[in-house]
Amino acid sequence: MILPKNNRLSAEQVAELTAVVCEFGCRIQPIVGDVRTIYAIVGDERHDLMISRLEGLPYVDRVDTIQSPHKLMDIKSDLANHRVRVGGVTLGDELLIMAGHCTLDPKNPNRFYETAAAVKEAGAHAIRGGVWKPRTNPYAFQGDHRSLDILMEASRRTGLPVDTEVMDEEQLRMALDAGVHILQIGARNALNYSLLRQVGKAIAGRDTVVLLKRSIHSGPLNEFISAAEYIVNFGNPNVILCPRGTQPGLDGYRNHPDESITPLLKERTWAPVVVDPSHSVGKAAYVTACSLAAVAYGADGLCIEANVEPAKGLGDDPKQAVTPAALAGLIKQAKAIHALRRSTLSPVTAS
Amino acid sequence: MILPKNNRLSAEQVAELTAVVCEFGCRIQPIVGDVRTIYAIVGDERHDLMISRLEGLPYVDRVDTIQSPHKLMDIKSDLANHRVRVGGVTLGDELLIMAGHCTLDPKNPNRFYETAAAVKEAGAHAIRGGVWKPRTNPYAFQGDHRSLDILMEASRRTGLPVDTEVMDEEQLRMALDAGVHILQIGARNALNYSLLRQVGKAIAGRDTVVLLKRSIHSGPLNEFISAAEYIVNFGNPNVILCPRGTQPGLDGYRNHPDESITPLLKERTWAPVVVDPSHSVGKAAYVTACSLAAVAYGADGLCIEANVEPAKGLGDDPKQAVTPAALAGLIKQAKAIHALRRSTLSPVTAS
Amino acid sequence: MILPKNNRLSAEQVAELTAVVCEFGCRIQPIVGDVRTIYAIVGDERHDLMISRLEGLPYVDRVDTIQSPHKLMDIKSDLANHRVRVGGVTLGDELLIMAGHCTLDPKNPNRFYETAAAVKEAGAHAIRGGVWKPRTNPYAFQGDHRSLDILMEASRRTGLPVDTEVMDEEQLRMALDAGVHILQIGARNALNYSLLRQVGKAIAGRDTVVLLKRSIHSGPLNEFISAAEYIVNFGNPNVILCPRGTQPGLDGYRNHPDESITPLLKERTWAPVVVDPSHSVGKAAYVTACSLAAVAYGADGLCIEANVEPAKGLGDDPKQAVTPAALAGLIKQAKAIHALRRSTLSPVTAS
Amino acid sequence: MILPKNNRLSAEQVAELTAVVCEFGCRIQPIVGDVRTIYAIVGDERHDLMISRLEGLPYVDRVDTIQSPHKLMDIKSDLANHRVRVGGVTLGDELLIMAGHCTLDPKNPNRFYETAAAVKEAGAHAIRGGVWKPRTNPYAFQGDHRSLDILMEASRRTGLPVDTEVMDEEQLRMALDAGVHILQIGARNALNYSLLRQVGKAIAGRDTVVLLKRSIHSGPLNEFISAAEYIVNFGNPNVILCPRGTQPGLDGYRNHPDESITPLLKERTWAPVVVDPSHSVGKAAYVTACSLAAVAYGADGLCIEANVEPAKGLGDDPKQAVTPAALAGLIKQAKAIHALRRSTLSPVTAS
Repeated sequence: MILPKNNRLSAEQVAELTAVVCEFGCRIQPIVGDVRTIYAIVGDERHDLMISRLEGLPYVDRVDTIQSPHKLMDIKSDLANHRVRVGGVTLGDELLIMAGHCTLDPKNPNRFYETAAAVKEAGAHAIRGGVWKPRTNPYAFQGDHRSLDILMEASRRTGLPVDTEVMDEEQLRMALDAGVHILQIGARNALNYSLLRQVGKAIAGRDTVVLLKRSIHSGPLNEFISAAEYIVNFGNPNVILCPRGTQPGLDGYRNHPDESITPLLKERTWAPVVVDPSHSVGKAAYVTACSLAAVAYGADGLCIEANVEPAKGLGDDPKQAVTPAALAGLIKQAKAIHALRRSTLSPVTAS
Repeated sequence: MILPKNNRLSAEQVAELTAVVCEFGCRIQPIVGDVRTIYAIVGDERHDLMISRLEGLPYVDRVDTIQSPHKLMDIKSDLANHRVRVGGVTLGDELLIMAGHCTLDPKNPNRFYETAAAVKEAGAHAIRGGVWKPRTNPYAFQGDHRSLDILMEASRRTGLPVDTEVMDEEQLRMALDAGVHILQIGARNALNYSLLRQVGKAIAGRDTVVLLKRSIHSGPLNEFISAAEYIVNFGNPNVILCPRGTQPGLDGYRNHPDESITPLLKERTWAPVVVDPSHSVGKAAYVTACSLAAVAYGADGLCIEANVEPAKGLGDDPKQAVTPAALAGLIKQAKAIHALRRSTLSPVTAS
Repeated sequence: MILPKNNRLSAEQVAELTAVVCEFGCRIQPIVGDVRTIYAIVGDERHDLMISRLEGLPYVDRVDTIQSPHKLMDIKSDLANHRVRVGGVTLGDELLIMAGHCTLDPKNPNRFYETAAAVKEAGAHAIRGGVWKPRTNPYAFQGDHRSLDILMEASRRTGLPVDTEVMDEEQLRMALDAGVHILQIGARNALNYSLLRQVGKAIAGRDTVVLLKRSIHSGPLNEFISAAEYIVNFGNPNVILCPRGTQPGLDGYRNHPDESITPLLKERTWAPVVVDPSHSVGKAAYVTACSLAAVAYGADGLCIEANVEPAKGLGDDPKQAVTPAALAGLIKQAKAIHALRRSTLSPVTAS
Repeated sequence: MILPKNNRLSAEQVAELTAVVCEFGCRIQPIVGDVRTIYAIVGDERHDLMISRLEGLPYVDRVDTIQSPHKLMDIKSDLANHRVRVGGVTLGDELLIMAGHCTLDPKNPNRFYETAAAVKEAGAHAIRGGVWKPRTNPYAFQGDHRSLDILMEASRRTGLPVDTEVMDEEQLRMALDAGVHILQIGARNALNYSLLRQVGKAIAGRDTVVLLKRSIHSGPLNEFISAAEYIVNFGNPNVILCPRGTQPGLDGYRNHPDESITPLLKERTWAPVVVDPSHSVGKAAYVTACSLAAVAYGADGLCIEANVEPAKGLGDDPKQAVTPAALAGLIKQAKAIHALRRSTLSPVTAS
């Protein structure tokens, strides 16, 4: 749909529009109104360059497109019935709980083993633990390769799958070689398309799952879903979308909580949504409230920072990790709300 | 706390700081660190002009204050035990439900009477209905004085209190004369201090309640609470804080839902929080999810647009009003979550 | 333009669409694409209620409208050739400079007379001075009626027109009775439609000018222009649009500077644009840079806080007022850039 | 500076604070006020983990730090006198102009050679051209390795240095092997710390320059400067900071222009600032205005998309590239404003 700046285009201008869209196999159909005429693009309009060229014409105000750019992630795609499974949980059926440290401490493996056992006991289905960490300050602790062994040992001891963030090809290779079950793409790399492609290629033919966090900015949902399209495009559709709060933040929280996008995502894509309340709010005291709200909005799971002794943790744990006891209470309430939500229509159509 | 731009101030600069704070009854205490010295303000620092003068000094980086500017709204104020009551509900004990039309249609009183009866039947404790409406477009329907009679008649028929927005002194006077129980201050007038003062004065000595919406922008919570302080300052403390979504909006919703501020408000003030999910999301299909999330975050109530026939409503109703049947389902779920929340610690301390 | 959620609507759905638009004198024209069909609204589509009803239909994704809602403010309206004049300056021809105190001090008239004389000397064409002030803190100094006499006396002494903010009908009446030349509507009242209407009515038949600030939030420009439409709708078209920074702010400034909207406003409306750099950045040290950028973007004038002794001023002056000497330097540079800009094509078409 | 939630801490709490800071070689000094006591941290407080632990204590409201985390990028660091040079221009002395295509077309090298010659003729000092492009849509053209030869050939023909974006280690290696002079880190990778470290290591001991764009979100300036610290930390201090607009965008532009951060950056760091007006506004018609504003704010240079035939370009060129003729006009005006700015005090202290 081409909206011109003026009420009507000249014949020359229409000829120019037509020439542009013809290159991409489309044609122009004018819609004559009482006051203005607008121009529909008939054909497959999913050509970024065609849109860009049309928008560059001085007499064009804007071009609206209506077709989803997501061949695979779209809710109407062939993957619509695909179900992602993590740690015995089929997302959508049962509420998935992932929990664990923000950052592993290579000098203190036992605390992580204790946390892993404790969050399993509290009801978690998967263990999260940061081996490598993106840090704003280049002089802060950035993680340590040796923590990968600790992570995998925790998996063996608990029998639960583990999740860790990878930020480059070397970390990706090491994590896969070690047998990490869930690869996390963090908010700072959410639009790092080189990494997304590398991850997509690397997990093709495996049963690895990717937990893809939303970018730090409150951008269009199209961007978030397109980032997932980069991954699934190589053949492994096990991708989970993870809202985690955006910037600018809400006065008093670390970020602006955005679990509210869950129904919007579910209208557009079949992919499961697992919310990270810990980064959304950034303080342990608010994590339960945010978790319950996420489930109320229809989230399929939660990814929570937990630690047997938050104050002794590295990274964000002293601020935002909850104790296993708090986690157990949180899970109980979250499951009750999940059951309540599933007993009615889907969140989107409930009213 | 005065943070200088450099590591240390000269004696002349400290003398200048001292002279400024002395005018306001305070004094300066240096805190000598290994690298820098900072300067504490000792005394009552709640003087805007003192802070402004200090911040204007060329060698001052910033001034941090720690005392709450809210003498009455602060959670530690003498009003901390005040409880607001609406339609038989004591806010905090029971979940308050307000529901009704966005805009009354003066030509069709019966539809409003039907809605009022239906939302009461669904479980609402108060009826909302817009007599006067702020509209971006000056040529759109702006409401009609005659609708005030319809509103009050609905109150008589149902026995429920009614809520309507007032935007100026004339509307305020008319609403109070008619006996409106709850005066709503809308998001566009949330920082209209002349109106807030007029409302505060007008309700002094009455049992009228004010539903104060948050401003359209995602500003500091201090601004929101200060707006309430303007009202209660005249003697009637029956004020309710109403988050309703902020701008810039979230891609897909009308606004950026902000029910998540509820725990932050509850840490700072004793005032009850009633969330408006209808304006937060702007589409009926998402109202239930947003309502449940608000309760999960600890809200004391919900203010919802409902209509027996949304498509025939005026204002926002065709887009965002839910039917009484949807409202009944929503209330049932919201009450279950409210009960769940109350069975544990407060949202703020739950984890 | 109606975009359905699915690829095509049923005959019943098209009949329902048609019934809605017929009530408003429009008709539906389908545009059949290879993949989807969309539905054009033919006729005058400027009916908010029609759009709202269409958007409320469950099978409608969204409705795009193309006609400007601004009958008078639109760049193609009959007012397009209207020129606003202030203090001998025709906006658009010469750069308008307004300068003066944030807040008048009723106990110290002489400082304001000194500032008025000094800013005139520096090159200002009009004097600004706050008689009444909106303050977040209800206990802060809110201005004083008696300052109105000081403001008018400054006008008599300098021969320059004066600007002051009004926030309610009483202040409006007092300001007009005293002969204030420019009424300022502040950011907190930018969407206070009752006040905008009162102002529009009150200035009809006079040569009073209104300086309308942008709302605190970074909302659609349509909202800003519509607010002006409320005023000019009563007959006096002397309105000036004033960007002043928005929230959430830019890390380090008071607000997020938004002088960059100037070219966007000038594409949509004929109204002159006068930028307020003082509130945009909030610190005197940045005011010159922001002023010059505003002129580079095509602004027709600047409204600046200035004070012969900023540190002794009330309100925001200690932080953000510049001295008359700084103002003189700023004006010289701003005029050079204004001349440079006018020597080429308009800002919008320059590249 | 530790601000407790209550007016005063218990002896046990102070002991706990002391134990935490002692681990990091600091000590606690109470500052006793009339109403409250706060607690200063004396010593080197630049330990993220110490701050995180303190903020995690339930009785701590917040911790304010005052020392810059930027050992090298800080305006007071040993690098403060370092000057970056590009194409014969010493940043800070003369306005740097970089210009060229968004995306190179491997099938049409001649158009790029023509653009390169034309922008040199118009006054540019360096040529930009995208060999690899980050694209939201995974199916859009992502660039082509073969374009690297075209880029270098343009450099040979014009004698000007060239700039291209790299997004991963392979591209980085190829670009350096080919002899690219300026490596661009795009907004989507602005917080990709693995890439920043790889770039820092790879350019150590070379005279390569890095053009580091700001992240898409309007985050703290500390984040932007810290990203540069990652690079210079390996020994090559030739880094340029490039604001390019942030999200959420301004209604009508592609992004929210943010050239206004220039004075704020210059207060904090010695690094030169080169603004990208093309991505800030996203439409050719606004590029001149944004460029001039950037120079008015004190920018040291501009990085502009230009094309001899924008409509035939790839990527963003059809929308946002200016012609060489427009570029020549823009440069002339920008230089005039640059001269005007340099004739007075620095932007930060001008008023």
